[in-house]
Amino acid sequence: MNRQIILKSRPTGMPVTTDFEIKEAPLTALKEDELLVKARFISVDPYMRGRMSDAKSYIPPFEVGKAMNGGVIAEVIESNHPDFVAGDTVLGHLSWQEIQTVNASLVTKLDQTTVPLSYYLGILGMPGLTAYFGFLEIGKPVAGETVVVSGAAGAVGMVVCQIARLKGCRVVGIAGSDDKTSYLKDVLKVDQIINYKTEKRIRSAVADACPDGVDIYFDNVGGSISDAVITNINKGARIILCGQISLYNSTEMPMGPRLQPTLLKKSALMQGFIVSNYASRFGEGVQQLSEWLSEGKLSYQETIVQGFDSLPETFIGLFLGKNTGKMLVEMD
Amino acid sequence: MNRQIILKSRPTGMPVTTDFEIKEAPLTALKEDELLVKARFISVDPYMRGRMSDAKSYIPPFEVGKAMNGGVIAEVIESNHPDFVAGDTVLGHLSWQEIQTVNASLVTKLDQTTVPLSYYLGILGMPGLTAYFGFLEIGKPVAGETVVVSGAAGAVGMVVCQIARLKGCRVVGIAGSDDKTSYLKDVLKVDQIINYKTEKRIRSAVADACPDGVDIYFDNVGGSISDAVITNINKGARIILCGQISLYNSTEMPMGPRLQPTLLKKSALMQGFIVSNYASRFGEGVQQLSEWLSEGKLSYQETIVQGFDSLPETFIGLFLGKNTGKMLVEMD
Repeated sequence: MNRQIILKSRPTGMPVTTDFEIKEAPLTALKEDELLVKARFISVDPYMRGRMSDAKSYIPPFEVGKAMNGGVIAEVIESNHPDFVAGDTVLGHLSWQEIQTVNASLVTKLDQTTVPLSYYLGILGMPGLTAYFGFLEIGKPVAGETVVVSGAAGAVGMVVCQIARLKGCRVVGIAGSDDKTSYLKDVLKVDQIINYKTEKRIRSAVADACPDGVDIYFDNVGGSISDAVITNINKGARIILCGQISLYNSTEMPMGPRLQPTLLKKSALMQGFIVSNYASRFGEGVQQLSEWLSEGKLSYQETIVQGFDSLPETFIGLFLGKNTGKMLVEMD
Repeated sequence: MNRQIILKSRPTGMPVTTDFEIKEAPLTALKEDELLVKARFISVDPYMRGRMSDAKSYIPPFEVGKAMNGGVIAEVIESNHPDFVAGDTVLGHLSWQEIQTVNASLVTKLDQTTVPLSYYLGILGMPGLTAYFGFLEIGKPVAGETVVVSGAAGAVGMVVCQIARLKGCRVVGIAGSDDKTSYLKDVLKVDQIINYKTEKRIRSAVADACPDGVDIYFDNVGGSISDAVITNINKGARIILCGQISLYNSTEMPMGPRLQPTLLKKSALMQGFIVSNYASRFGEGVQQLSEWLSEGKLSYQETIVQGFDSLPETFIGLFLGKNTGKMLVEMD
């Protein structure tokens, strides 16, 4: 039986596994230009939480009763398109479904590479490009500046930390476990780390870690961690809004200190973005990230969970901080 | 007796007249390169409230026991500098003092002009330049876009409204009295106005006034008015933080809805600034504003109160919305 995972109900607050359902997915006959593909890696990403609600956003919500979808690496089983043959590996925005048909124009063929295939859902995919363009285009880092990254051990954050160091910045990473902070410090050589789960006074911890103040804040989490960082910004600081994972499961309007007086006093910038704003330049980003990888200037970490059935629980794990680096599900 | 107005005590919340004191100001002998000047117009500005507190900001606080200071237009009574003669009119950052000595390098001679002299503290001074650079450099307006201005009938806001119209934008002004909204609508030809004091549901009033959403928000006031505007922003919106007058007298950390999720979904920018960031380009700004004034493309309004003694009360009036346009005190 070929299976898919549908959104059964829109979650209130933290998603639970019963918001999803595994269903049989009948296959239709292959039409012209279509491929039959078998999933190998399926991505779970924090932004998907927004699509589970019906609030208006930058992409339409998932439909209740329909399959979830997102980044998938798949193998071509059968091809009705001249550019693809069985055995090719492709990347696309596909359903959470074991085997599916897809129009060939909607996928990209992945050539044999020297990096793990799964990197195309991570450092060479959406998260890596998000880090690259968000940090460089909005942050405009200058060597010697202090950069704070929240969610620093996440799929995006760990790339930002490393690019910031490549640009000569001093990097302070905030993460939520000793494993994560050790990885940041020992492997990625982040200058200073803060474990927000054990650190009781985050505001003064940020102040201590940033004696010259914060010039760039790359924010993946929002909430009180961001409040703590923002009270420490310098004149002309840039705050890059990439994610707000701490708020995604809020059931009420999240309240907090008003930030405008601080931004005003500091002539600071706060800029939201989504990676697709830079779609026309993805090639440039992938090329630079690949080059840094091959030169050994970038490392990457993945948390790979086995088995199609584990998708809902793996997705939920993102909001419990269960991942170091990119969280992925690999098909058995 | 020559007099000055000192800061007697730092206010808690709304300033009161007893936070100020009128004192005798003895004059010292004129040194080389100094001028003896007599104040003609003294500016009161919302930003001065920040300087009355001892919190760290972009300019040092006023000192308790010392004279207040700010923008002043004065007449030269005696000159010890070759470029100035008695009778010259000068503009400078001077004390709240009837007659004072000042080093000639710290003032600018105002030539005879075709505009009221007081405009050099308003549309051709700090407020006009604030409007010009903040709106154009951060807002980057495009013809056809919708611009919302809070504090629209203030010294800065009314210039922004008009520049926005000159750039082909649709302008919605928010102000706090019928006199102000009438002025905006009838004289400045602002497309739509909202009286936030009589309008009970500001959020839906903004939505009604902006059927195509908000592309640029020029914010002079902050607080709940800004919350209402920001819920209506479009993708790629620019929010220009110029002032937060509704919060300047807060005695507790002002709280409000967290804005980052909205800025993130909308790929929106929020940028604080102070006019001195653009100091190297002030000449360009004054020239363009003067040109628009002489072509009849800009109007300006002033609220001029008579008498040195009225300075404290006039300043406090800024926070009660007593001014339309630039608030000034003219010496008797």
